[in-house]
Amino acid sequence: MKTLKIIKIGGNIIDNEDALHSFLKEFSKLKGSKILVHGGGKLATQLANKMNVEVKMSNGRRITDVETLDIITMVYAGKINKTIVAKLQAQQCNAVGFSGADGNTIVSVKRHVKEVDFGYVGDVVMVNISVLKTLLKTNCTPVFCAITHDENGQLLNTNADTIASELAIAFAEVYKTELYYCFEKSGVLENVDDNASVIEDITTENFQTLKDQGTIADGMLPKLDNCFHAIAHNVSKVCIGKPELLFNSKSKFTTITAK
Amino acid sequence: MKTLKIIKIGGNIIDNEDALHSFLKEFSKLKGSKILVHGGGKLATQLANKMNVEVKMSNGRRITDVETLDIITMVYAGKINKTIVAKLQAQQCNAVGFSGADGNTIVSVKRHVKEVDFGYVGDVVMVNISVLKTLLKTNCTPVFCAITHDENGQLLNTNADTIASELAIAFAEVYKTELYYCFEKSGVLENVDDNASVIEDITTENFQTLKDQGTIADGMLPKLDNCFHAIAHNVSKVCIGKPELLFNSKSKFTTITAK
Repeated sequence: MKTLKIIKIGGNIIDNEDALHSFLKEFSKLKGSKILVHGGGKLATQLANKMNVEVKMSNGRRITDVETLDIITMVYAGKINKTIVAKLQAQQCNAVGFSGADGNTIVSVKRHVKEVDFGYVGDVVMVNISVLKTLLKTNCTPVFCAITHDENGQLLNTNADTIASELAIAFAEVYKTELYYCFEKSGVLENVDDNASVIEDITTENFQTLKDQGTIADGMLPKLDNCFHAIAHNVSKVCIGKPELLFNSKSKFTTITAK
Repeated sequence: MKTLKIIKIGGNIIDNEDALHSFLKEFSKLKGSKILVHGGGKLATQLANKMNVEVKMSNGRRITDVETLDIITMVYAGKINKTIVAKLQAQQCNAVGFSGADGNTIVSVKRHVKEVDFGYVGDVVMVNISVLKTLLKTNCTPVFCAITHDENGQLLNTNADTIASELAIAFAEVYKTELYYCFEKSGVLENVDDNASVIEDITTENFQTLKDQGTIADGMLPKLDNCFHAIAHNVSKVCIGKPELLFNSKSKFTTITAK
């Protein structure tokens, strides 16, 4: 089985022009099949401010009303996606931009309203890899923004970490799939204030202990749950850390495996 | 040789939600291989107004400064392209959105500054159809916005009519290629105020006469030059008229052929 790398980058890279440029330069050199998934960064909030659209939050989470969905579609699928695709082309990496609507790749359902109505937010229900498989075979590199659709014509805002893990799970049948979450820290840290305190290996066995000790808490919990969800569905490994982990063999990061 | 239909729609369809919906419903039923190219409509100007970005014009033509390019990328490649793709998916048409940067499909160069600096406007220099050919073979329908790139990481604003004709020309080697320009009129008119006065056939022979008589003038001249440029490069026919020409066998429209 060939290896497929699925790499997710977040706002810390997207919002910094130099960081994005050097990341994409290194990314384009990575051998073998690869898919890039990007989050949104601060650009959507900046555009909302310029347009005097109020950013609505509930418990720290953005509510996607119809105006916000428009902004997100413009910024994520338009500005950020096409900028990344053009920059990859300049590095001779034959990128093709995707939302989940393109090629019907990622189908989601609008989240049911419980206590909070999150609006046009989609939870993934199906991933169709046929178009992506065809493109990967011709050495294209799909670049995903975090927008999906419901197959009834509605675009939906979807978590980029989830898009990356669902793609990895869907591809696990046909590729040895590796999932990489790149963010501002060196990985899961023993001490949240010390970037050197990276926990290099997390397995299903020590995960429970780390949770019980409170070492893994807050925002890191859903991230890790996402990782173990992927591992439980035949993704071969998940790595978390700074983007250097992809290019620099000496860098320290967290690897999550089944055991 | 199989037939490929390349269909360009403009602002009169894009700006009208009902018109867009019914066009896409009919478009999705068209048999055989097809590519959709869409213009921008009024949304870009509306967004520029909301963001207090001044729309700069020279002799009735928009100047694409860096802020305008951002707006166009967001509106054309983001909002409009993804809305169309999602709506086509709802009609079981497996659409995949493209800019010229995606798959390195349309390469352009920034227009040289003569009297006027049009800014980030690109003139097409190369069309690479390999990714598109692969997708068409798997019954996907590419949907193009009017943005290209220069292979050095720069996105460029390009005329949608030109994108449609350059795609048609590039595909003429491998498909019997038909080009359709859909707009608000029934075609080229004898009398510009009478939609019933459609000139149904224009050939290289009567084109010169129609120009000499002044029947074809103003905005219609570059449109027709574009059509004859396609015809001269092996596109089998070009049709101009209302979108009905694609679906209604009784509708009248203009067909341009070599002779």
